[in-house]
Amino acid sequence: MRKIEVIILGTASSIPTKDRNSSSIVIIREGEYFMFDCGEGTQRQMMKARLGFNRPMKIFITHLHGDHVLGLPGLLQTMSFLDRSRPLEIYGPRGLKKFIDCTLESLKVELTFDLKVKQIVEGVVYERHDLIVRAKRGKHSTLTYAYRFEEKERPGRFNVEKALALGVPRGPLWKKLQMGETVKVRDKIVKPEDVLGPPRKGLSVGISGDTRPVDDFSEFFKDVDLLIFEATYSDDHINIAKEYLHSTAREAAGIAKLCNVKGLVLVHFSNRYKDASKLVKEASEIFPNVIEGKDLLRIEVTEEGIKLASSSFL
Amino acid sequence: MRKIEVIILGTASSIPTKDRNSSSIVIIREGEYFMFDCGEGTQRQMMKARLGFNRPMKIFITHLHGDHVLGLPGLLQTMSFLDRSRPLEIYGPRGLKKFIDCTLESLKVELTFDLKVKQIVEGVVYERHDLIVRAKRGKHSTLTYAYRFEEKERPGRFNVEKALALGVPRGPLWKKLQMGETVKVRDKIVKPEDVLGPPRKGLSVGISGDTRPVDDFSEFFKDVDLLIFEATYSDDHINIAKEYLHSTAREAAGIAKLCNVKGLVLVHFSNRYKDASKLVKEASEIFPNVIEGKDLLRIEVTEEGIKLASSSFL
Repeated sequence: MRKIEVIILGTASSIPTKDRNSSSIVIIREGEYFMFDCGEGTQRQMMKARLGFNRPMKIFITHLHGDHVLGLPGLLQTMSFLDRSRPLEIYGPRGLKKFIDCTLESLKVELTFDLKVKQIVEGVVYERHDLIVRAKRGKHSTLTYAYRFEEKERPGRFNVEKALALGVPRGPLWKKLQMGETVKVRDKIVKPEDVLGPPRKGLSVGISGDTRPVDDFSEFFKDVDLLIFEATYSDDHINIAKEYLHSTAREAAGIAKLCNVKGLVLVHFSNRYKDASKLVKEASEIFPNVIEGKDLLRIEVTEEGIKLASSSFL
Repeated sequence: MRKIEVIILGTASSIPTKDRNSSSIVIIREGEYFMFDCGEGTQRQMMKARLGFNRPMKIFITHLHGDHVLGLPGLLQTMSFLDRSRPLEIYGPRGLKKFIDCTLESLKVELTFDLKVKQIVEGVVYERHDLIVRAKRGKHSTLTYAYRFEEKERPGRFNVEKALALGVPRGPLWKKLQMGETVKVRDKIVKPEDVLGPPRKGLSVGISGDTRPVDDFSEFFKDVDLLIFEATYSDDHINIAKEYLHSTAREAAGIAKLCNVKGLVLVHFSNRYKDASKLVKEASEIFPNVIEGKDLLRIEVTEEGIKLASSSFL
């Protein structure tokens, strides 16, 4: 069964707390890391979550506020102290390169690996044969992007019995059918759809970054398995949410419902809330499958659904 | 009884660990904070130590390596989110201003308070009526300064019985004698030394920063009450200490002994050591009063000596 893991490394908003580190989320897929935001202290959160520093990895930054990027210089430095050899790519809004360059230069950090910083615009920001990452502008006090991480659709399951019944012998012809090619067996045409089940949708995760809910999200996050959405404020503070261009927990749930997601993780809680139960309650009135984001929470996303794993690796 | 408190916020060396944050030390004196270094994650360590963000405060940076300064931008940002109004001064080596300016500018951090960054040279870096902070160059792979924080000497205790015996009446003449003035009582001259005990030495703390032991330290740290010295390596790794320009625990103890300090706190342990007991043992063979630096350890420095307070505020 296919599976991706999501580790929520930090769940604070602009000001961290004793219990909540600044923003960072990691998707682990086949041993590869896809990090979204990297607030101050992320490297220690990675250690607590037992993540490695020389894994294949890409980092995607939603926006250039300190609580989303101030962990980058220390992470890059630690990777170098640990002799990282694999290249690393960081994607994010314009200004990202200047921030990284000026900090590394002022501190004379010498990288042991190839670092590429790519400033993005809306649309596909990363694509290869098996997955695609898209960005969509949000609405915040600075240029901000939401991300959609998605595995590509894979061919349907190969039906061995049907293939044999149609007289296709085990061997290279099976492979061709699996790859979508039509084949000929003793003057008989066999098409892929004769032996393959329906195409299998890849797993997908949406990440809001800091933003007001925007109309585009209803399409952008449509049918993602897991949506991780900022819920800085409760209903009581909707006016502050509007003023500072954040979302309430209820608004996050509205997007989750509209997009028909399987699970919603709330993150980025204002430090004014002693605990997030009120926010989870408000969201749950709109959408059933709400998960309170907690630091080091691990979530498994599979074809069968969303499952919480141990909440701590300590 | 006079007292200063020292809180060790971080005790890791270049790479933090699950249990040790990057470098930072705070001296608390009469409600005022004097911070030495500010590694990534220091603001959360301050929260865990229940330190405030709008206190009178000065920050002194030993050198511009990431593990000693990467907490500054986030700390300044959080202070502003919390509407800090008091001015803040940061002292450190050349290059400090560029680092702070470029990070705050790239992230568009707007400060709510007056920030002054002062690039220092060896000598007195801060002085006022009651205390003085001096810097001395260390020997490391980048320009680095050790610091000596010291209260100024205060006049000796006023001996009431002697004053009365000499016929000086309670009142303004006592005050004058305390302030060091000679007074006249019925044609009789009374000098301050007639009624005052010996001058009282202020409390003092030395902070090494990252450095090899250098000859100048024997004078610079002479007679400090508490010496906080880097002990990145154990005896086994003296060659690495020399190569990377750090000190061993034993070398730190050698300085402590030479300088006749009351207590030595070891900090900045390489992440290769699972625990620091071996380093403490090696130092203790040279000098008796060795304290293993631990994150959030609190130490009281008084005229009577050094005392450990609760090791955790959590």
